[in-house]
Amino acid sequence: MSVNFAKCTSVLITGASRGLGLQMVKHLVGISERPQKIIATARSPDTAQELHQIAKSHPEVYIVPLDVVNDASIEAVFQKVSSIVGPAGLNCLINNAGILIHSDLNSETRDGMMTTFQSNTVSPLFVTRAFLPLLRAAAAACDGGVMSVNRAAVINVSALLGSLQLSWGETSVHRAYAYRVSKAGLNMLTRCLALDLQSDGILCTVVHPGWVQTDMGGKQAPLTPEESISSLLSVVCALSEKDTGQFLDYEGKNLPW
Amino acid sequence: MSVNFAKCTSVLITGASRGLGLQMVKHLVGISERPQKIIATARSPDTAQELHQIAKSHPEVYIVPLDVVNDASIEAVFQKVSSIVGPAGLNCLINNAGILIHSDLNSETRDGMMTTFQSNTVSPLFVTRAFLPLLRAAAAACDGGVMSVNRAAVINVSALLGSLQLSWGETSVHRAYAYRVSKAGLNMLTRCLALDLQSDGILCTVVHPGWVQTDMGGKQAPLTPEESISSLLSVVCALSEKDTGQFLDYEGKNLPW
Repeated sequence: MSVNFAKCTSVLITGASRGLGLQMVKHLVGISERPQKIIATARSPDTAQELHQIAKSHPEVYIVPLDVVNDASIEAVFQKVSSIVGPAGLNCLINNAGILIHSDLNSETRDGMMTTFQSNTVSPLFVTRAFLPLLRAAAAACDGGVMSVNRAAVINVSALLGSLQLSWGETSVHRAYAYRVSKAGLNMLTRCLALDLQSDGILCTVVHPGWVQTDMGGKQAPLTPEESISSLLSVVCALSEKDTGQFLDYEGKNLPW
Repeated sequence: MSVNFAKCTSVLITGASRGLGLQMVKHLVGISERPQKIIATARSPDTAQELHQIAKSHPEVYIVPLDVVNDASIEAVFQKVSSIVGPAGLNCLINNAGILIHSDLNSETRDGMMTTFQSNTVSPLFVTRAFLPLLRAAAAACDGGVMSVNRAAVINVSALLGSLQLSWGETSVHRAYAYRVSKAGLNMLTRCLALDLQSDGILCTVVHPGWVQTDMGGKQAPLTPEESISSLLSVVCALSEKDTGQFLDYEGKNLPW
């Protein structure tokens, strides 16, 4: 499958300073069927040298500072993004920012649980809610159209480790309580959002990008960021109504809850 | 099915001042096959008049103050419970304490999400971890035995609203983001605990008590506390190895994740 975002005017990606978020930006600017506006947010974009390099030669990339756990930061970004996208609204919001604290039953802490939940589960809800006026504007602009990222979509980046069904047997080795619980919570959040936003024509899907060689995934991961993201974006650009409220992996396979 | 806890020497129930926790205590003291020691914890037991009435005429009931979100409180309770149960350890820990904030997409707040997660998801982990020495002592006391609440068990009280699979269609009307997410997280937590504690012989199961006429469930709920808890406790006392890491309702039916 190819990656075609030519009909998706604007995409916003959180956590775009490194890892999978950065790779999404790199991939999108490298294809001819790219969005007209790629809004890359990061908590501390000043230190995101590679992202700035990309933006220098790609005027379609807008770098915006956003700390997803801070509501005042979200509100400020909403104003900036509103002026970037204009009345056409925002087509695709990718909630990619997240953290992983390696832990097990003995080492887990309340702070670790709460901090991980705040970043990985709570923040995607409040980022999404803040951008709803822009997502609704985009959805209404093609009223009666089918659901897709070309119209209006929220893509939440979760993980296989958030699957309760698969947290048993082979895939259960890496326990990481805080991370698993936060991603199961993100999956539930996506289910709720999908139901609440379906009447607006906004698609909501939660995805597993695979186990990837990033700072988070570690060097022993089987996938490169390029492999993961080229496949994941081909899945994302092909999403339709049947996929709203569902959990898909980077190859488009439905995952069990 | 009957409720038989005659071979379960000690049970600890959190959130026992009212609602389902109080009903568990009431039911257990009312049967002849009751545990020898029923430890009823509550955040503010001084105001729990009904619980004190029960304890007056039932010396097997021990009322212990416990604020599940406070680690110092948990540590103090561990010391008290250790002296109550002695070297036999604790057979059955029921993590029942929990909160429900009615909310929807528009009214949800970060504080509501975090507070609900702290009470309903994080606290059961740290209460369980604190009591592990006593659960392990009980499990070891019948080493080689089968898994059951008579040996050593953690029962987490969750809800149907925590099922991702069922958060779609008919059962999805009540969105309550914070509550649903916290219970999906509690289910994941139970999966992880079940795997980590199976080599110790400690059973971990998550249960749905039904929709019950309590302060939390409201008056329109179809089940009385008596109906829910008599059925739920008959299920709990019959749990075996096949049920560890599983999600059961008050009638013993397996629920999907």
